[in-house]
Amino acid sequence: MRKIKPRTLSGFMELLPSEQVSFDTMMQKLRDSFSLFGFTPLDTPLMEASEILLAKGGGETEKQMYQLSKGDTDLALRYELTTSLAKYVSLYYNDLTFPFRRYEIGKVYRGERAQRGRFREFYQADIDIIGDGSLNILNEAEIPSVIYKALTSLGLSRFYIRINNRKVLGSFYEIIGAGDKATEIMRTVDKLDKVGSDKLSKMLSENLGLTDAQISEIISFVTYKGDPFEILDKYKGKNETFDKGTEELLTLKTLLSGFGVPESHYKIDLSLARGLDYYTGTVYETYLTDYPEVGSIGGGGRYDNLAEYFTDRKMPGVGISIGLNRLFYILQEQKLLSDDFYSSPADVLIIPMTDDLSPAVTLATSMREAGLKVQIYNEDKKFKVKVSYANKLDIPFVAFLGEDEIKGGVITVKDMTNGQQTTASSAMLTAGICDKIKELNKNPPVR
Amino acid sequence: MRKIKPRTLSGFMELLPSEQVSFDTMMQKLRDSFSLFGFTPLDTPLMEASEILLAKGGGETEKQMYQLSKGDTDLALRYELTTSLAKYVSLYYNDLTFPFRRYEIGKVYRGERAQRGRFREFYQADIDIIGDGSLNILNEAEIPSVIYKALTSLGLSRFYIRINNRKVLGSFYEIIGAGDKATEIMRTVDKLDKVGSDKLSKMLSENLGLTDAQISEIISFVTYKGDPFEILDKYKGKNETFDKGTEELLTLKTLLSGFGVPESHYKIDLSLARGLDYYTGTVYETYLTDYPEVGSIGGGGRYDNLAEYFTDRKMPGVGISIGLNRLFYILQEQKLLSDDFYSSPADVLIIPMTDDLSPAVTLATSMREAGLKVQIYNEDKKFKVKVSYANKLDIPFVAFLGEDEIKGGVITVKDMTNGQQTTASSAMLTAGICDKIKELNKNPPVR
Repeated sequence: MRKIKPRTLSGFMELLPSEQVSFDTMMQKLRDSFSLFGFTPLDTPLMEASEILLAKGGGETEKQMYQLSKGDTDLALRYELTTSLAKYVSLYYNDLTFPFRRYEIGKVYRGERAQRGRFREFYQADIDIIGDGSLNILNEAEIPSVIYKALTSLGLSRFYIRINNRKVLGSFYEIIGAGDKATEIMRTVDKLDKVGSDKLSKMLSENLGLTDAQISEIISFVTYKGDPFEILDKYKGKNETFDKGTEELLTLKTLLSGFGVPESHYKIDLSLARGLDYYTGTVYETYLTDYPEVGSIGGGGRYDNLAEYFTDRKMPGVGISIGLNRLFYILQEQKLLSDDFYSSPADVLIIPMTDDLSPAVTLATSMREAGLKVQIYNEDKKFKVKVSYANKLDIPFVAFLGEDEIKGGVITVKDMTNGQQTTASSAMLTAGICDKIKELNKNPPVR
Repeated sequence: MRKIKPRTLSGFMELLPSEQVSFDTMMQKLRDSFSLFGFTPLDTPLMEASEILLAKGGGETEKQMYQLSKGDTDLALRYELTTSLAKYVSLYYNDLTFPFRRYEIGKVYRGERAQRGRFREFYQADIDIIGDGSLNILNEAEIPSVIYKALTSLGLSRFYIRINNRKVLGSFYEIIGAGDKATEIMRTVDKLDKVGSDKLSKMLSENLGLTDAQISEIISFVTYKGDPFEILDKYKGKNETFDKGTEELLTLKTLLSGFGVPESHYKIDLSLARGLDYYTGTVYETYLTDYPEVGSIGGGGRYDNLAEYFTDRKMPGVGISIGLNRLFYILQEQKLLSDDFYSSPADVLIIPMTDDLSPAVTLATSMREAGLKVQIYNEDKKFKVKVSYANKLDIPFVAFLGEDEIKGGVITVKDMTNGQQTTASSAMLTAGICDKIKELNKNPPVR
């Protein structure tokens, strides 16, 4: 038979079993964290009619979208999860209760140039709170708390969330007489970290034609090192939107400690803009403290009109998105995945030593009833190979059942972590193993 | 702005929030059940190079496959999970330890004619045990136990697993002198339930040209009402494969009670063939006892050569597959989803009654620390609307925080299930709520 060379497409992540357990555990911890904040899970189709996914209009997105047709229907794979959400809340508006809090962790597809750490198929983990007509600022204040809870649940500790407000930014440029160029200025200022303030000044002058006075105000505003509310105070009373944005930032700052976010883990940062035009209030970006060079690992913000392509209803919202495969890739690259994380497929390997398999089978069943993950190894191999199966898979306990054990109503268990071998009743040993496994399961996937 | 009418493709399941919680809980319970048997999770790409997914050869499969191209690569969406597994074990052979037990719960795509209960995008939940060169019969005996555990964990009780052995079936037809027509006979006999034995006899005679003696032997074999081992015994010693198959069935029967499968939940059924040609040993098919008309809800069997299109290595295996969307659809249709299943997005809704939101935020954080799912409702609405938000979402507890409560260091909680209102310390009420939620979470999704 002619063989096809097995391969996986470039840009498509495929993990080995123990890595997959880390990845899945991370996803589960995110789900659990999102649930604590009252987000309900959604699972929308990966494929939609092209007109739905392209409703927002094409450009770069359309070029990177995987499109196909079946019969006479033009189809596409989703590029992100927000359009699916917009369709969902429009379509099921009457069945939903607002504010509607949902999370979705699902695969998205982008036909980008494949490169290290960039994926063509990857999971996005999104949370959004969608209001019907209006949405209280409290929801914006809560988002950093969700990020904090979610990332600490993975085991991450050294990260921080940059927070700004687009109302402040946009109207600041109005105040200094550059309101018509606000979007371009924000895009340029977003590069501050990369280029430094001298280069930034030059770009603002040469590319956008700002005056020296304007540039100097911008630079001192976005690089202000003291309490940001001091410099915000300087511009108070000059523009209503600016004052509203300042008030929103103050509300956030006031509530964040109550929401359990330590001061070490967020920073109100007047230079943060986030590229996308549709943010209209608070914006967020999350960074690994020790690895600023990898860039944001997740972000989002407040927007005013989620579903304008599908409905006349005004649905403002706030949300964030984390790209999980990229995050996982970074954690792997930076050696931040924990060696102590327990990813064995089984807690116990039972090796039957008699022809009659019933005692081994009964033991397996009772251990599973106790919640243990159990495999029975009965392949026709040498004893050494059987034990090495447990070693290779990091199975921490091996149970032997020979004539003597069966007669005596006991089992022999070897703790593979220290080589200790114990013979006792299965009930007693099962209880002991359960305790040890519980300990092992406490270690989070990230160090 | 021009609006696009929001819609979801026909044949693509999209659930409302409370239904999604049931569906997700079912998936989680399957994962937990599979894990108890030492299956490790995999998550292979949904998209592969076409040549990989079509390695087996096309036919009906190819017609129904979603195919596309990007650049100069021909791509396709997976039609089932087995080909991805075959590719995986071939590609990562050196990194894996055999027998290799994996489960995968993932979406697959079939461009079938959409009809009620048939989906174009649906989840398959697959488990497989792959051997390297050989695989012990114990693995085949374990599969019904996995099915039993998985389905009972969902809350299902009235189902049974039909079990047969392809070695027995194939060689039985050899024994009666019809070995050359074995495959066609099996396909025909598979229709026994639908057409009855008279019609079956006619088909065997007219379509396959079997003699009356052969037909009578077939009918009495596949419709035998007594202990199947009685009739198997009649043919003993006539064919080596037949005897091997009989022995395998006997091993299964002997071990199933040790594996915890009650006699009421399986049946050795000599008429069961399963369509697919590649099964070579035990085969399984699962039915809802009270709804035989909906057909099998999951099945599988033993095969000898998983990855023959990708590698020369012989990798025998055994596995089963459950189509989750169809199962969910049937459970919904048959009103088998439980009304007692708890699917609210939040356990507690906190309604702040003061301008200062800090006490409400702090309360939310401490309740979340205790593991409760909490939302704070601070939209600018009338009190009645705030409470009705909890009602609409079936949130069982509402906590009020007014001036009096804040001064007194207490909170007021209303139990929405019975209308009782209690004022006490937040620690005390949190503990009480946790207990009640624990009770609510005990109800499985299926009745």
